[in-house]
Amino acid sequence: MIGDQYLLLPGPTPIPERVVRAMSKPMVNHRGPEFKQLLLEVTGELKEVYQTKQHVLIYPASGTGALEAAVVNFLSPRDKVLAVSIGVFGDRFAKIASEFGAQVEKMDFPWGQPADPQRVKERLDQDVNREIKAVLVTHNETSTGVFNDMKAIGEALGSHPALLMVDAISGLATIDLKMDEWNLDVVVSGSQKAFMIPPGLSFMAFNEKALEVHKQSKMPRYYWDASQGLKYLEKGQNPYTPAASLYYGLAESLRIMKEEGLDNIIERHRNYRDMVRSSVQAMGLELLAKDEYASHALTAVVAPEQIGANQIRKFMLEQFNIVLAGGQQKLDNVIFRIGHLGYVRELDLLAALAALEISLYKLGWEIELGIGINKAQTFILNKTQKGD
Amino acid sequence: MIGDQYLLLPGPTPIPERVVRAMSKPMVNHRGPEFKQLLLEVTGELKEVYQTKQHVLIYPASGTGALEAAVVNFLSPRDKVLAVSIGVFGDRFAKIASEFGAQVEKMDFPWGQPADPQRVKERLDQDVNREIKAVLVTHNETSTGVFNDMKAIGEALGSHPALLMVDAISGLATIDLKMDEWNLDVVVSGSQKAFMIPPGLSFMAFNEKALEVHKQSKMPRYYWDASQGLKYLEKGQNPYTPAASLYYGLAESLRIMKEEGLDNIIERHRNYRDMVRSSVQAMGLELLAKDEYASHALTAVVAPEQIGANQIRKFMLEQFNIVLAGGQQKLDNVIFRIGHLGYVRELDLLAALAALEISLYKLGWEIELGIGINKAQTFILNKTQKGD
Repeated sequence: MIGDQYLLLPGPTPIPERVVRAMSKPMVNHRGPEFKQLLLEVTGELKEVYQTKQHVLIYPASGTGALEAAVVNFLSPRDKVLAVSIGVFGDRFAKIASEFGAQVEKMDFPWGQPADPQRVKERLDQDVNREIKAVLVTHNETSTGVFNDMKAIGEALGSHPALLMVDAISGLATIDLKMDEWNLDVVVSGSQKAFMIPPGLSFMAFNEKALEVHKQSKMPRYYWDASQGLKYLEKGQNPYTPAASLYYGLAESLRIMKEEGLDNIIERHRNYRDMVRSSVQAMGLELLAKDEYASHALTAVVAPEQIGANQIRKFMLEQFNIVLAGGQQKLDNVIFRIGHLGYVRELDLLAALAALEISLYKLGWEIELGIGINKAQTFILNKTQKGD
Repeated sequence: MIGDQYLLLPGPTPIPERVVRAMSKPMVNHRGPEFKQLLLEVTGELKEVYQTKQHVLIYPASGTGALEAAVVNFLSPRDKVLAVSIGVFGDRFAKIASEFGAQVEKMDFPWGQPADPQRVKERLDQDVNREIKAVLVTHNETSTGVFNDMKAIGEALGSHPALLMVDAISGLATIDLKMDEWNLDVVVSGSQKAFMIPPGLSFMAFNEKALEVHKQSKMPRYYWDASQGLKYLEKGQNPYTPAASLYYGLAESLRIMKEEGLDNIIERHRNYRDMVRSSVQAMGLELLAKDEYASHALTAVVAPEQIGANQIRKFMLEQFNIVLAGGQQKLDNVIFRIGHLGYVRELDLLAALAALEISLYKLGWEIELGIGINKAQTFILNKTQKGD
């Protein structure tokens, strides 16, 4: 098929040409002045995206690595941990903590729904002896397309001393997250999502409260050790060889993000969500998540049972070269997920939605061609007029 | 200064243009058929470089990550481990093992010298109760430019059941290493050395004996877990998001390596070593390592005391845009290190050696300009004639 794929996954996202070019720069000495300047620049800009004045470390690793980094830096074996899960990635965070010997209490919510901050508050209120050392929460659950209200969960902790550790891998810079203002103690993210660069870097932000806990923490660690990370950062270095080409890309993507502005980026992702949802609903399909907590980063669509989500994905790939994500675990063949984060253009989504209509029609779904596209067009039209 | 730097570090090495172009390809679905094909291809080709038919896993991490992976996959807390160290990276391997609770017995050799296989054999012979579970060894010690005789160390283990775990990060594909033939159980490496791609991928090869130990191993692990890695590899996937752009680069660099041929690559690196060493010696400088065990990947040069290694490096950088590595820890300002591994051309080295002569002269060293270059030229001439 002619032309590149339409990659509409919830990460990795397409890469802007400027970022591709930046990543092509020759290697430098990772112990020299050029790298120092680059590291300090990107660390400073990352703090803007995290809306924090606290610490940020960059790991040569994918997002899951930063989840492990959070666990081994800020917990100790046998620590009581409350792991709030609303899907696959909430489960993963809990699994890592229990693998490293924490006593994990799961608080599960049905897949497709967000966590209830009130239930978190009640559980912490019961913990009169303050035994719970940390609360683990997913900002945006990629497996279901649902986001958690991190401000309300921050408030739910109140005066409880537990650390609030947040997996914001797919959420950061698509949905608002004010790390300092909302009292989030540890927030991790990854490069292949809103940052629009290839996978292979992950980020861990943490505040002074977390740093104090870290100093007492007894987990075994070397690669992820935040003390070493901070010590070398002061010299403008990484404790071991950093993934230099991805740093070049990151510096450029952070420039692109600054040009657009964080508020505008979040607004853009919110618009993508609203446009995609209204269009898909007009096609007669059901959405997994309700409007109030539907992710800005991706939309999980419930496929008609008689067709099945995987048949739709297969048709879209073979006929139109469009790559959608499937459902994970118990949602396999039940939902398909349209990623709309990072370097995705409005018109790419419009084209993909038009192709989805054709696919549904060909697979036997009763649909009037153009009915969903009309909604998306109308959304864009209204948005443009408002913007004028 | 006009033009790119001459990067003569022991990694990262310069990147071939073909590899840069390959890394610029658009992202694909890391759970789709294109990535599956890529992963299976590079895994197969890596085995050729390792000279093994055993298992190879690829991590989104730098080399140090693969050292941690070796420790957490094949050791258990309180395991007795014999850590043979000939420098900074041998110390690092030992440190990671002890951080994870292994009982580490260090066997140190003076910096600038290799390990004595006989001493390893004697220590293992003393271990009549077979309490030592693993022997950790560095293939090529980057901090001193010395390589260990891995064949002899493999033989030193004899019938002792300990696993032989090898850090071959800077050694693999510059100095011969026959994993299967020499009974090396676990061998790790990294992308930014002989593989000529940017840092950010590391590799861990291990045999069936190691896999059996892994199944009983009790270290906490998630990110590095080899069981998960193997399980997903069967499906042509990674357990979590792989660093896709670096895989593209790796596939291309493995093609380049195949075109050259592994034996020729090792021969080329040996020639670089011999050429650089003969030239530097003719300049009246001392070498840290003796000929018999001098690294093919880099040459550690002892700087004249009255000048100091760091002044030479500074001059070379400022006047000629040549980046050399310094000495680490107790070798700081004592030695400088000329990297000659990966994508380095003979003429780059010739130019750098000429610049070194000028630098030494300007810094007050008594030297006849051209005396070292003459040696290097003669070396190339003889090699060419032999090759005819």
